[in-house]
Amino acid sequence: MKQSSLFTKTIKENLKDEESINAQLLIRGGFIDKLMAGVYSYLPLGFLVLKKIENIVREEMINISGQEVFLPALHPKENWEITNRWQQEENIMFKFKNQRGKDMGLGWTHEEIITPLVKKFVHSYKDLPVYVFQIQNKFRNELRAKSGLLRGREFIMKDLYSFHKDEKDLDNYHEKAKKAYFKIFDRCGIKKQTFLTYASGGAFSKYSHEFQTITPYGEDEIYLCEKCRLAINKEIIKESNYQCIQCKNKDLKIKKAIEVGNIFKLKDRFSKPFDLKFKDKNGEEKIIMMGCYGIGISRLMGAVVEVYHDDKGIIWPKNVSPYLLHLIRIEKDKEIINKTDKIYNDLQKEKIEVLYDDREDKTAGEKFSDADLIGIPYRVLLTKKTLEKECVEIKKRNEKKSKLIKIKDVIKFVKEISK
Amino acid sequence: MKQSSLFTKTIKENLKDEESINAQLLIRGGFIDKLMAGVYSYLPLGFLVLKKIENIVREEMINISGQEVFLPALHPKENWEITNRWQQEENIMFKFKNQRGKDMGLGWTHEEIITPLVKKFVHSYKDLPVYVFQIQNKFRNELRAKSGLLRGREFIMKDLYSFHKDEKDLDNYHEKAKKAYFKIFDRCGIKKQTFLTYASGGAFSKYSHEFQTITPYGEDEIYLCEKCRLAINKEIIKESNYQCIQCKNKDLKIKKAIEVGNIFKLKDRFSKPFDLKFKDKNGEEKIIMMGCYGIGISRLMGAVVEVYHDDKGIIWPKNVSPYLLHLIRIEKDKEIINKTDKIYNDLQKEKIEVLYDDREDKTAGEKFSDADLIGIPYRVLLTKKTLEKECVEIKKRNEKKSKLIKIKDVIKFVKEISK
Repeated sequence: MKQSSLFTKTIKENLKDEESINAQLLIRGGFIDKLMAGVYSYLPLGFLVLKKIENIVREEMINISGQEVFLPALHPKENWEITNRWQQEENIMFKFKNQRGKDMGLGWTHEEIITPLVKKFVHSYKDLPVYVFQIQNKFRNELRAKSGLLRGREFIMKDLYSFHKDEKDLDNYHEKAKKAYFKIFDRCGIKKQTFLTYASGGAFSKYSHEFQTITPYGEDEIYLCEKCRLAINKEIIKESNYQCIQCKNKDLKIKKAIEVGNIFKLKDRFSKPFDLKFKDKNGEEKIIMMGCYGIGISRLMGAVVEVYHDDKGIIWPKNVSPYLLHLIRIEKDKEIINKTDKIYNDLQKEKIEVLYDDREDKTAGEKFSDADLIGIPYRVLLTKKTLEKECVEIKKRNEKKSKLIKIKDVIKFVKEISK
Repeated sequence: MKQSSLFTKTIKENLKDEESINAQLLIRGGFIDKLMAGVYSYLPLGFLVLKKIENIVREEMINISGQEVFLPALHPKENWEITNRWQQEENIMFKFKNQRGKDMGLGWTHEEIITPLVKKFVHSYKDLPVYVFQIQNKFRNELRAKSGLLRGREFIMKDLYSFHKDEKDLDNYHEKAKKAYFKIFDRCGIKKQTFLTYASGGAFSKYSHEFQTITPYGEDEIYLCEKCRLAINKEIIKESNYQCIQCKNKDLKIKKAIEVGNIFKLKDRFSKPFDLKFKDKNGEEKIIMMGCYGIGISRLMGAVVEVYHDDKGIIWPKNVSPYLLHLIRIEKDKEIINKTDKIYNDLQKEKIEVLYDDREDKTAGEKFSDADLIGIPYRVLLTKKTLEKECVEIKKRNEKKSKLIKIKDVIKFVKEISK
């Protein structure tokens, strides 16, 4: 992509109406735009990041046998009355009537939709287990939207639902999902900072599992056992006697963190009201056990920025960066223009993701600070000086030193780093 | 994908509450499910079709320099008041208040969002043109939802918006978009049945351009000039004097059709109220000219089914079929099982899209009628009889005759047909 044609521009100044680091940097870098409190547009650069994260999540869900669907955002009141959540969770849902006076709401989760849907297709033990997931925009009528992409009124979620013949099967899949989640956080570059965290199980079970990513401005507070790499959410720390749930260690570190995922054993919380049963091998009717597994795709994008930035801008981990390379031209000499154009074209041919700062009306200083703000992992620069050595200068966003690479070896180098 | 693990099942009987062919066949085939009138879930097979269409549309939009974004579904009332459409189009929009009493609505189109967004980044002639598109769920508070995927309350749209320095530039891009649209319809298999159609320009201009696909149960009526391959929508036929707009031919054929796309020259309809201007080369302020270009992704899916089906089921065009091959096993002989498994695994290794009917509890008849209902273009069958000749039988969904292909040549054959 040529930066001269990129629809967005960076913003130099700090924004007054955004407190969170993720919103500040993502808006200033041209990744997102705020339409109103808690509601953001994803602009071309931000859309690329979103798709990168989406694809990582999608691949790992398919790896644990997830089948992808796309469920509606418009929900009928009736489904939510069956589980008593139309009233119980009154304020979370945006509600309205259609032209015919029918009550509807906007989905903030999809148990009320997926459970009766699965009931249409699952009758026998032979039809189980079922794993269904979707990646979709969801809506919450939050009283206070805050923290940029971390707590929005409209956001993008992956939610997977699993259906099992018994609790043991649910438990096994729960373990599998846990591992898949850590693979996702690993591929997104935040595994090191992310901890399985015991939290309140809500109406479903004693504990639920959250995945919390440590950052200085996290909304949540967790008590971390570094030995077990396990944490306990503040909300249940008293209940767990200020001890690690696994090793009973009392030396827990208090950390701010962002919840980037959660997995629940729903058991029969939803299958019961929807009467979702199956016939086992002996023809006996049994209730189906359910699990649900959420990851906020847009929230994860925000969390990555909270973890990876400095005072100049974002520092994208390679796998979720909008581009792998930021090719920059700062000299107006014809030979430099032609040679940089050629490098760009060669990279394009090899399908290497590159943003090419070919803008004519920007100084070197402006281009470098834009590059730092946007945060693409590798900056590639050709100047008269590097050309004398038939080289380009390559600098990692998070390192001060740069190195020279022969122009003819650029593709090879890039293939090496993109492994 | 093994059919024994596929989450959905087919439905044998005709559905009483669906009048349209597309909804009948798509629900019975397990592609979609109706949550309520005009609101459908996309199930694994349907999701695959949706993604195929989406990717075709995406590629052609990128080919005409479109940059992809993702805009919110939640819209603030203020933006719609600026263009007077909050009141004017009162009933189309789902409207509600958030917890703080702020009025919002659900987007059924995005001019009111994209125009002020572009205003943030475009100031000079150097920033133009801009082409932005998105693929997203949209919402219409229809009094009567009908015709399955053709007129829903929630649906998936691609909308592209273009921004130009003058009308000439808009006109040129409009022509380019027209060609891109025909490429899309060609790739989706419905170009032959699809005609550029003059329709009412609404508030924007004398005429707008629609793309109408002829099918016996289309909602619209068009007057077709077969010579020019041009049509006129019934709504303006009187105005155009019952003549072809191009060649003045009066021998027009009246046909039922489905609108699968539309392109509008918006000119200054939205840039004016939002005061979207730019400075030209002489530093003079000028109003920006806009165009918009829509394709209903889910509607296109419905239209393809309306065009391609018979009394047994759907007949997917290759490029939008959930899978290219339907591999079917009807004999329980161990050798047949092993050899069919091997063919499946070999196809999987080559990343060839195949649905494998490995179900143990279905008869040959049931499997064949399911295959016809689901409508994958090629059916592949291994039996003792074909094995004697070291062959599989391959039958096209829309042909009666089958042919024998050597097992060792299956991959080669498939690569040939998938070109």
